[in-house]
Amino acid sequence: MTQDRVHLMGADIAEQPEALARLLGGPSLHRVGQVAAVIRDRGPRFVLLAARGTSDHAALYAKYLAEVSLGLPAGMVTPSAMTAYGARPDLSDVLLITVSRDGDAADLQEILQIARAGGATTIAVTNDPGSEQAQAAELQLDVMAGPEPSGASTKSYTCELLSLWLVIDAVRGGDGQAAEAIPVAAQALVDRRGEVCLLARRYRARHRFVTTGRGYSYPTAREAASLLMETAGVSAHAYSGADLLHGPLNMIERDHPVIAVVPDGRGAKAMRPVLERLADRGAEVAVFGAGSTALGTVGYRLEPQGIAEELHPVLDIVPLQQLALELALAREGADPPDNGGEPSRP
Amino acid sequence: MTQDRVHLMGADIAEQPEALARLLGGPSLHRVGQVAAVIRDRGPRFVLLAARGTSDHAALYAKYLAEVSLGLPAGMVTPSAMTAYGARPDLSDVLLITVSRDGDAADLQEILQIARAGGATTIAVTNDPGSEQAQAAELQLDVMAGPEPSGASTKSYTCELLSLWLVIDAVRGGDGQAAEAIPVAAQALVDRRGEVCLLARRYRARHRFVTTGRGYSYPTAREAASLLMETAGVSAHAYSGADLLHGPLNMIERDHPVIAVVPDGRGAKAMRPVLERLADRGAEVAVFGAGSTALGTVGYRLEPQGIAEELHPVLDIVPLQQLALELALAREGADPPDNGGEPSRP
Repeated sequence: MTQDRVHLMGADIAEQPEALARLLGGPSLHRVGQVAAVIRDRGPRFVLLAARGTSDHAALYAKYLAEVSLGLPAGMVTPSAMTAYGARPDLSDVLLITVSRDGDAADLQEILQIARAGGATTIAVTNDPGSEQAQAAELQLDVMAGPEPSGASTKSYTCELLSLWLVIDAVRGGDGQAAEAIPVAAQALVDRRGEVCLLARRYRARHRFVTTGRGYSYPTAREAASLLMETAGVSAHAYSGADLLHGPLNMIERDHPVIAVVPDGRGAKAMRPVLERLADRGAEVAVFGAGSTALGTVGYRLEPQGIAEELHPVLDIVPLQQLALELALAREGADPPDNGGEPSRP
Repeated sequence: MTQDRVHLMGADIAEQPEALARLLGGPSLHRVGQVAAVIRDRGPRFVLLAARGTSDHAALYAKYLAEVSLGLPAGMVTPSAMTAYGARPDLSDVLLITVSRDGDAADLQEILQIARAGGATTIAVTNDPGSEQAQAAELQLDVMAGPEPSGASTKSYTCELLSLWLVIDAVRGGDGQAAEAIPVAAQALVDRRGEVCLLARRYRARHRFVTTGRGYSYPTAREAASLLMETAGVSAHAYSGADLLHGPLNMIERDHPVIAVVPDGRGAKAMRPVLERLADRGAEVAVFGAGSTALGTVGYRLEPQGIAEELHPVLDIVPLQQLALELALAREGADPPDNGGEPSRP
């Protein structure tokens, strides 16, 4: 990413509190309520989600929400099954949600058309509800993030997360008020950029990162890995905490810093054995989130302020967006890597 | 991986034709038919799959098969939704399949118990059908791969793939005969190890790989990335071809060799724009599979011999298992990496 784009990305990150507040305003909540009323009326039995890239991580977040808070089995669509192999599944009783910033993925448009023909209730969650893709859905939700001139998805991602939470909260009968504190909490994180800058300095000569989380924090770990790769040009692998305990743990050397996303709810309990095993191996672990940072080498603690764990992903990603950006800047001024941070033997 | 274990892995890879032939024998097909008869009788409307690590790639293969050849929407279970967050979805009309080599993942056992209580038809596909985990399922399928002393999953993976294909083929009314040529075709691949050895020599000083595929080939690309990481100690990122065309393509430098899995059926058509874009960027691409290797820098062509594309994943992975192994051996004797194959600037 060029320096110009990195600075534009910084502006997008800083605009998140305002963008999130927009979603909590009356006109937005009214539209969310209308969409939720249609879903409740249809009474879907399964949820399918289709998305690409960053939006795929937002869709994965919605999958957890649908399973945990609506009690509906849910799956991610593998688009090529329908678009390349011609699968035409019976989708009656299915709620199919696409998530896309620009609404420009031709395959998602095709999936919406196939899903409608197959009997699904379809919703396009997008930053461009007028796009052809979004119009292929029966229902549209505008995430209202505004343009992102840097090209990187930052505010569009958190606005997708909050939009998905709002509609699922409305389906279960909520009024969105549990998210009221989100914009102020997001502003507090935006204002802590200096702390992240210090962390980035620590990592500026590192080239291979591992990110991890469980449950609601797993999409955050995946999005953090994408941001690190695409913005800072480092290698970053995301693993669910449970998968990390299997094979990949053996790969983690002292030269692979781990970024663990640890909330303070049930996800914290699920991550504890992962953090303990990493500590046993002497791994360098940075813990982000509202959970205890005691098992990390370094930590960035997020004050939960009474916000439920299921909403933390909207906040947890903010310092990780900043980390990717600060790392891109720090690496511009970094010493040339010695041996690229790579182990010299397999 | 130690040298001893690498050699044990070589023996496991070579045993695949025999192990696959076992699955096509009368007693195995009889058991598959019994399981398929129960599934047909229940008439599931939705398929859920749960697995970890290598078995997760086999489960993803089954997801494509269920969608394309049974016309059923399918999803991968996110275990923590049930185990950490207490989700208890209504799973009537759901077929839930776990895939596990050792049957030792406690969370999969818990998911089978929850799924049975929630009304699902449950099948455990495992190399140890007597394990507690497998016994938690209503139905068991033994992949009969035998022990894998190296620890790496090779023959257990291809046996999982073939077992999943056999049961889904039986559900749609097949008799498994379409897979008859698999053991002989697998033997032909095992015998071509020398070709792979030459490829490994080409890559021995490389540290960051990208693997890619679409549709049925995408699980192969993911498994190849895991094998490269866990066996050869290199970094390897797997992307679906469609996702690669978005952000990640910009990361591919000349120092990131790409391994593309390209079948000769509909998947080949879907991969063509991906290969063209990679060629435009001057990427170094090794093409594996029955598709045209014309757009690759190098290629390893698999003769399709009349075997349907949906069965190719059982074969396509064999040279990639060998590549991981040969790369581990080649890197033992490699020159020290200069700059770790890493770009020195983001």
